[in-house]
Amino acid sequence: MNEINSLAARYRYTPGAAIEDYPTSVNLFERPKEVLRSSVQTVGELQQRLYAEHRFSVLLVFQGMDASGKDSTIKHVTSGVNSQGFMVYNFRQPTYKDIEHNYLWRYWRAMPERGRIGIFNRSHYEEVLVVRVRPEILEARRLIQEKFDERFWRNRFQEIRALERHLGENGTKVVKFFLNLSKGEQKKRLQRRLEDPEKYWKFDPSDIDERALWSPYQQAYQDAIAATHTEDAPWYLVPADDKGTMRAIVASVIATELAALDLKFPEPTAEQLAKINWAREQLAAEAD
Amino acid sequence: MNEINSLAARYRYTPGAAIEDYPTSVNLFERPKEVLRSSVQTVGELQQRLYAEHRFSVLLVFQGMDASGKDSTIKHVTSGVNSQGFMVYNFRQPTYKDIEHNYLWRYWRAMPERGRIGIFNRSHYEEVLVVRVRPEILEARRLIQEKFDERFWRNRFQEIRALERHLGENGTKVVKFFLNLSKGEQKKRLQRRLEDPEKYWKFDPSDIDERALWSPYQQAYQDAIAATHTEDAPWYLVPADDKGTMRAIVASVIATELAALDLKFPEPTAEQLAKINWAREQLAAEAD
Repeated sequence: MNEINSLAARYRYTPGAAIEDYPTSVNLFERPKEVLRSSVQTVGELQQRLYAEHRFSVLLVFQGMDASGKDSTIKHVTSGVNSQGFMVYNFRQPTYKDIEHNYLWRYWRAMPERGRIGIFNRSHYEEVLVVRVRPEILEARRLIQEKFDERFWRNRFQEIRALERHLGENGTKVVKFFLNLSKGEQKKRLQRRLEDPEKYWKFDPSDIDERALWSPYQQAYQDAIAATHTEDAPWYLVPADDKGTMRAIVASVIATELAALDLKFPEPTAEQLAKINWAREQLAAEAD
Repeated sequence: MNEINSLAARYRYTPGAAIEDYPTSVNLFERPKEVLRSSVQTVGELQQRLYAEHRFSVLLVFQGMDASGKDSTIKHVTSGVNSQGFMVYNFRQPTYKDIEHNYLWRYWRAMPERGRIGIFNRSHYEEVLVVRVRPEILEARRLIQEKFDERFWRNRFQEIRALERHLGENGTKVVKFFLNLSKGEQKKRLQRRLEDPEKYWKFDPSDIDERALWSPYQQAYQDAIAATHTEDAPWYLVPADDKGTMRAIVASVIATELAALDLKFPEPTAEQLAKINWAREQLAAEAD
């Protein structure tokens, strides 16, 4: 666990740091797949305790630019976990009904139940990212605020901190990942998508428009991460240019964070033990 | 695929048959894990097409007595599928709010979206199983019907057939599994649970009470399966006494049923191709 712990520490956001201080590309492991496999196994074991203890839940947030590997990372880090132990939510365009409510409503509804791991592929952070870079989206939402100025965004950051603090206080551990991709690597990945006819269906022309806004997005991420990183709901900035390394780091961080919850199989009470004895006797007494 | 197809045919319910006609124990495979692995791989590939095509969805229903292996089978057959491609729902005791609605309401709400595989661990079939064996549950539900007689159950079967027909007509393929466990094997499994302190938390004294109702449950399953098996929403009765064999059969059936949907990666339209060309040019023209 020591190596894993030091890994988590290395990519955990340090208050005051700039996201450019964190690498997008590292060469850490000789065999990233083995690190992934062993971390995923640990996550699977700890998830059983999480479920058995039925006290805590976990919310994993995945954010990153297009083609940063959110989907495939989620796929890989969940591959050893009982599928009943987690729920993945993809937050795409909000529906009409979502917009009729306040901006955190649809995320609240998807929060993980006790004993489960909830995974947000994009999340409430889009409410301080895409809508900040493209304020015209907000203008269509009939909010009570009229100006989307610094104060507006400070309020949203504060509200998100309050949400996550509430979750933590009530047993939901929040862990947030920024998949930190370089602009050059994104270009290569988008180009590969455009070369493979089997992947055409994945292509969305807006990916190119979003790419043109790379700098405003980096700035929005910088502000959001700096304003919402807390001891209890930390951000991890994971180098994303190499997918294998990224998956291994993400799985290690999840293993570390779950281990820190000190999850235990529940001890049976005297009453439960009496019932277990009763059940043993019932089964033993059956006519075969 | 031929062997897999014949497997599916072997355990597919035949109208008019009794569930006792189906074995609870078979010795089919030399290496059940390999059959499982290759079927799971097929399921994973077909799920990608399901998602890409975004026309159909799939609902897999898992029913069976306590300790028949529903949880672990679901875990294994989903292990090769992108976790974003499915959602697992465990239907336990209905909530107060569920009961305030008609008996199919909570299942409707959990139906899979286009492109996804929904998995029901227990399902709407509990509404003709547990409540049939224990009518006192129904009596507490303030239904408009007063008698829970043959006619009442025939109506429910008909309503379930109508629901599943509706799903099929609108693009949701329904496949139903009865994990067919013998009473003797259930006894062994319950006893093992009662011997392992790490598994005490899984023990529920009501498992013993339910076991005492084995025959009424078998009869309720018999009636429900016979009344709701259709060409488009078939039941499979899978021998459950050996977990490895069961998982392999279930995965093979899922692979067969997905293959029958003839899922295709969507062909790009002329407009999409034009956008793909535009995007290629945009990326190529970037100053590096």
